[in-house]
Amino acid sequence: MELYNREQIQHVVTLDHAALDAVEAGFRALGEGNVVQPPILSMAIEESNGEVDVKTAHIKGNERFAIKVSPGFFDNPKLGLPSLNGLMIVFSAKTGLVEAVLFDEGYLTDIRTALAGAIAAKHLSRADSKRVTVLGAGLQAELQVAALKLVRDIDTLDVWARDVAKAEAYAARMQKKYGLTVTVHAEIGNACREADIIVTTTPSREPLLSGEHLRDGVHVTAMGSDSPDKRELDSSVMERADHFVADARAQSENNGELKAYAGHDAPFRINELGRVVAGGSSLRTADSQITVCDLTGTGVQDTAIAGFALGRLAE
Amino acid sequence: MELYNREQIQHVVTLDHAALDAVEAGFRALGEGNVVQPPILSMAIEESNGEVDVKTAHIKGNERFAIKVSPGFFDNPKLGLPSLNGLMIVFSAKTGLVEAVLFDEGYLTDIRTALAGAIAAKHLSRADSKRVTVLGAGLQAELQVAALKLVRDIDTLDVWARDVAKAEAYAARMQKKYGLTVTVHAEIGNACREADIIVTTTPSREPLLSGEHLRDGVHVTAMGSDSPDKRELDSSVMERADHFVADARAQSENNGELKAYAGHDAPFRINELGRVVAGGSSLRTADSQITVCDLTGTGVQDTAIAGFALGRLAE
Repeated sequence: MELYNREQIQHVVTLDHAALDAVEAGFRALGEGNVVQPPILSMAIEESNGEVDVKTAHIKGNERFAIKVSPGFFDNPKLGLPSLNGLMIVFSAKTGLVEAVLFDEGYLTDIRTALAGAIAAKHLSRADSKRVTVLGAGLQAELQVAALKLVRDIDTLDVWARDVAKAEAYAARMQKKYGLTVTVHAEIGNACREADIIVTTTPSREPLLSGEHLRDGVHVTAMGSDSPDKRELDSSVMERADHFVADARAQSENNGELKAYAGHDAPFRINELGRVVAGGSSLRTADSQITVCDLTGTGVQDTAIAGFALGRLAE
Repeated sequence: MELYNREQIQHVVTLDHAALDAVEAGFRALGEGNVVQPPILSMAIEESNGEVDVKTAHIKGNERFAIKVSPGFFDNPKLGLPSLNGLMIVFSAKTGLVEAVLFDEGYLTDIRTALAGAIAAKHLSRADSKRVTVLGAGLQAELQVAALKLVRDIDTLDVWARDVAKAEAYAARMQKKYGLTVTVHAEIGNACREADIIVTTTPSREPLLSGEHLRDGVHVTAMGSDSPDKRELDSSVMERADHFVADARAQSENNGELKAYAGHDAPFRINELGRVVAGGSSLRTADSQITVCDLTGTGVQDTAIAGFALGRLAE
């Protein structure tokens, strides 16, 4: 059994095409019905404003599967500690023996989450998409754009965040690090006006983006909502979309943007990202169509990225 | 963060009164409503005849909680490997940071499972119980008796197992190691005729024990069934009992002896072990009453024994 720390993992796993292919293969297997993916185990630790989630999946025929444990303790910053954390345990799918523990402190979750955004954009956005709007200015605001650059020729970034100082700092970083033309906006509507792709990356509890913010042909990826109390998209976004895709419908109903439609029929068709990837062709049939993807984070992404990481670590 | 292996853990955690008190305190907290215990996460790896379960619980106010991962790969013996395995990850309940990983390979599960049997007998069996019948001849057949000796003056053991050679070997071991008077029986009915306590420890898929096997005053603990396809007790056992107790009613309905009654009212009252422990007095009000307890294994036991182990390891 091998143990690896964050530094070792960061050294070999980055946002590159190989990692993208690994996570995309996971989604493809999911869409082909070749993945066992049980519901998330979730436990609240109320007295510490904390929670812990456990995700897993097995890609049939794969040699390994991973179980990921993600604690989120939201008072940690007061103690000088990060809120999010975690580790992945990699098991042999033949014997159940532990092959490795990846003490990645949530790093691989960051990576596979960003890659899911790129996979959504690869299969749903217009191929000539160049201009991205990001709501939020945290870590995923950066990683989502970095991952998008793997699949689209992004050159322009529009930013809105509740905290203007954070938005300005993020804009400066994105300009310098990725050579993008970046504009900070005070209004979400203005930020979205010219967007080819919109990515929402906030922990908002109220919808931020509404249907009237969408121009024809835009693709929206909403990746911020991951719990029953969060939501970024107004129902008008889904209802205006020509194609709506969730990474996992049941999770989207519990933790994501489909909460408002849980338990009854939605007035739009609900696709799943794995099926779109497995289908091999975009749902989009015209440049003017609007596509929306809700990402809540799936166990198959964890198993895929953990297997990929272990392959690189063992080289 | 500390890592401990099975040998280190076995050195400090054994079937003793301190460990029993720790697990009993977990059940008491559960019964008092002071435990968050989410449903088990369970995933099958069909091509390897394997499964993996994740259990956890948080005892409110406790400094730590554990997440246990238990793989069971039932073709492993063909490869010279044990079927059961596992590890426990201990987290700070204040920050969510990993405090320790206990690579116990299932040892702590064996211990806390045996202790639950002792706790059930302590609260439900007649105080003068001396004679135990065990169905099965595996590891728990031994550990359940060793744990019972912490709470009752056991001197006589009757054994039945499907594999007579295994039953004979088990009987010889129990005689030598624990100084018990042991008899091997070919019929379950004969094995149970004089029992004060019956413990069923088999992986049976068909009920083995029926109401007619029970004599007045006996206590039955069924600990073998832990999945939807296993069952040891015929419904007539529960229906003959004066008091029926499950460690966790929902788990007993899914994985244990309450399967036949899931989704509708049972013709008997269903108690939970935590509430019996918290209540502080036995349900038994007469020596002639029959008590039955179904154990499926709960996350609070894992959190309790992991915290206890870590305390001992850190000494």
